[in-house]
Amino acid sequence: MKINSNYLNLKDNYLFKTVKKKVNDFILKNPGKKIINLGIGDVTLPICKCAVDAANNATIGMGRAETFKGYGPDGGYEFLREKIAEKYYSRSVKIKTDEIFVSDGAKSDISGILDIFSLENVCLVPDPVYPVYSDSNIMDGRQIVYLNANEENEFLPLPEDRYAADIIYICSPNNPTGSVYTAEMLKKWVNFANSNDSIILFDAAYEAFISEKKLPHSIFEIEGSKTCAIEINSFSKSAGFTGMRCAYMIIPHELVREGVSINKLWGKRISVKFNGVSYVIQRAAESVLTNEGNLQCKNLLTYYRENARITSSTLRNSKVRFFGGENSPYIWMKCPENIKSWDFFDYLLENFGVVGVPGSGFGKNGEGYFRFTTFGKREDINEAARIIGGVFS
Amino acid sequence: MKINSNYLNLKDNYLFKTVKKKVNDFILKNPGKKIINLGIGDVTLPICKCAVDAANNATIGMGRAETFKGYGPDGGYEFLREKIAEKYYSRSVKIKTDEIFVSDGAKSDISGILDIFSLENVCLVPDPVYPVYSDSNIMDGRQIVYLNANEENEFLPLPEDRYAADIIYICSPNNPTGSVYTAEMLKKWVNFANSNDSIILFDAAYEAFISEKKLPHSIFEIEGSKTCAIEINSFSKSAGFTGMRCAYMIIPHELVREGVSINKLWGKRISVKFNGVSYVIQRAAESVLTNEGNLQCKNLLTYYRENARITSSTLRNSKVRFFGGENSPYIWMKCPENIKSWDFFDYLLENFGVVGVPGSGFGKNGEGYFRFTTFGKREDINEAARIIGGVFS
Repeated sequence: MKINSNYLNLKDNYLFKTVKKKVNDFILKNPGKKIINLGIGDVTLPICKCAVDAANNATIGMGRAETFKGYGPDGGYEFLREKIAEKYYSRSVKIKTDEIFVSDGAKSDISGILDIFSLENVCLVPDPVYPVYSDSNIMDGRQIVYLNANEENEFLPLPEDRYAADIIYICSPNNPTGSVYTAEMLKKWVNFANSNDSIILFDAAYEAFISEKKLPHSIFEIEGSKTCAIEINSFSKSAGFTGMRCAYMIIPHELVREGVSINKLWGKRISVKFNGVSYVIQRAAESVLTNEGNLQCKNLLTYYRENARITSSTLRNSKVRFFGGENSPYIWMKCPENIKSWDFFDYLLENFGVVGVPGSGFGKNGEGYFRFTTFGKREDINEAARIIGGVFS
Repeated sequence: MKINSNYLNLKDNYLFKTVKKKVNDFILKNPGKKIINLGIGDVTLPICKCAVDAANNATIGMGRAETFKGYGPDGGYEFLREKIAEKYYSRSVKIKTDEIFVSDGAKSDISGILDIFSLENVCLVPDPVYPVYSDSNIMDGRQIVYLNANEENEFLPLPEDRYAADIIYICSPNNPTGSVYTAEMLKKWVNFANSNDSIILFDAAYEAFISEKKLPHSIFEIEGSKTCAIEINSFSKSAGFTGMRCAYMIIPHELVREGVSINKLWGKRISVKFNGVSYVIQRAAESVLTNEGNLQCKNLLTYYRENARITSSTLRNSKVRFFGGENSPYIWMKCPENIKSWDFFDYLLENFGVVGVPGSGFGKNGEGYFRFTTFGKREDINEAARIIGGVFS
């Protein structure tokens, strides 16, 4: 018996686990001291009434013989897929319901999709990056080429001919940097992917935070994308579903590699390795895509956007260099006086009980940066903004 | 870009998809004709009141700021892991809560666990077998050695020295044959695995159907198993959760290969590729493990067992050779007059609208056999028993 030795190449601790451990150690040593956690990108506001009602009705239905549901379709119920297709259609993107695969989470999709690609493929992953992109490829033993995202390109790297990658990761609005690609920039990536026979994995988990009209929410707003892109989206951030668990992936029929439909290939994958998302959760997800649900979710988004505005404005006043905060729930700031990310983490935690995520945890280009989420409670955001402003003044 | 070419080695259609397609075609051609579906092993009774109440309370909690839950622990909430540990303890099996990993389904676990094992490992898979065992290995490109399960060994094959396998699949009570290993037989497998450095993946999804006192419900009832076994169990069949989605996997700390803790390795895997099961669903799962929940679930089990008794007794009266039906929700019968499995499938469907699963879909040793589930509605079971009895008389 041999284990998958690629796992031994993973860094010993997953970034967020390390953050959590450090915070727990701090709490043990400083009982009673207040912690302001703007670290892991987890929402704090409750799910909307629509979702509560829909989940409760579905649950009651599961308790009655006439309306009980057993196994559902692996890729999700038609009622939910239709609502997702409508959401895209409202942005003039036409997606067929059988191009949509409902899942338990964007993390499961982003890592799971690799199953259907050869281990010989080369991945192009931006640095800094959401660790799941690189870690899931390290676990498979795929070669990773890192793409420099830095202040020079405003953390929005563009394709260059020297990158010969098969799988390209794009996250926009970006985690961790909060930067957002324009349609023109995405078009360059789409052209690159089409001419290199690559596939773009487009992580749209934060698209609901885009407020500027011109910015694209979906890769499928870009012409030519259907022959080269897969999109991953989630209810986690837009509807506060991190604890409910529902996401989806869109694989267009036009996406074909080596003569094989990638959509069909993923269909095979989930028929063997997945049994669908809970009916109860799918009904809740459906409800947030109704008109009423949309309105209720907007309240959540408005709250988090105001958090972002408060933090951004404090940082701006304190002359801190940062990215994001607009069109994104993340703020990516430069640490003061060129100190290192983990040092800044320790400094903020030990002196003020403020928790963020060290930029270096997202890759070498993240060194000297720090990520805050704006998913926190308003009073925490206010206090954190005041503290961080103070550090820099 | 290359696809994972191992996928091209999968048979074109997943067994249950083919069954479904044939049934749908029949319905289209015979509108209004009644279908008695004893094919896919899906439950038909609603979830118990305990689970409805627990899920509803949890959902209401998700809608309130004070009780809202975001991301939970990847491997499940402690409240649920404790209840699972108690369940095992009630059968004198001591499992620590951090040896339990809660998931969205046994299918996800059985296929996902392969991620942490080398592609060079050889798998020992019984034939006939639940297709996920073999298909998930075919998709990874692992070598599979099939183990003959047949009438001679009563579909309970035992280890032989010539099998040099790294990963061993055991499902007891068995899907599809309904046969159940005794403790003495399992001990032989445990000894074999320990001396060959193999790991047993023990699928206990149907253990709740065991009624004979002496039969083991868990591989961990067998001495020596903690150094060589992983157990997969589910709420699907015992609590009617096929549409709710909750399962769990037990990986003992004692299970170490190449100096690495398999428990820790799986922990790494889920920290990168999973975000846990919905809080709402975990609360529902917890509730069915309470005393009251246990009692309510027993009603489901009693109903399905009576179904099995009715079918078994009809088959026995008609002198049909079959396995299972006791300690198992599956009945595995020999097709009449040595006709082939798919022919018998077509015959039953076309003449009587009765749907089962052709044994040959589970492997070459399944040819000439047929599987019925006893998860159907009582009136369907009665009618099916009457029809099948008639075929043989």
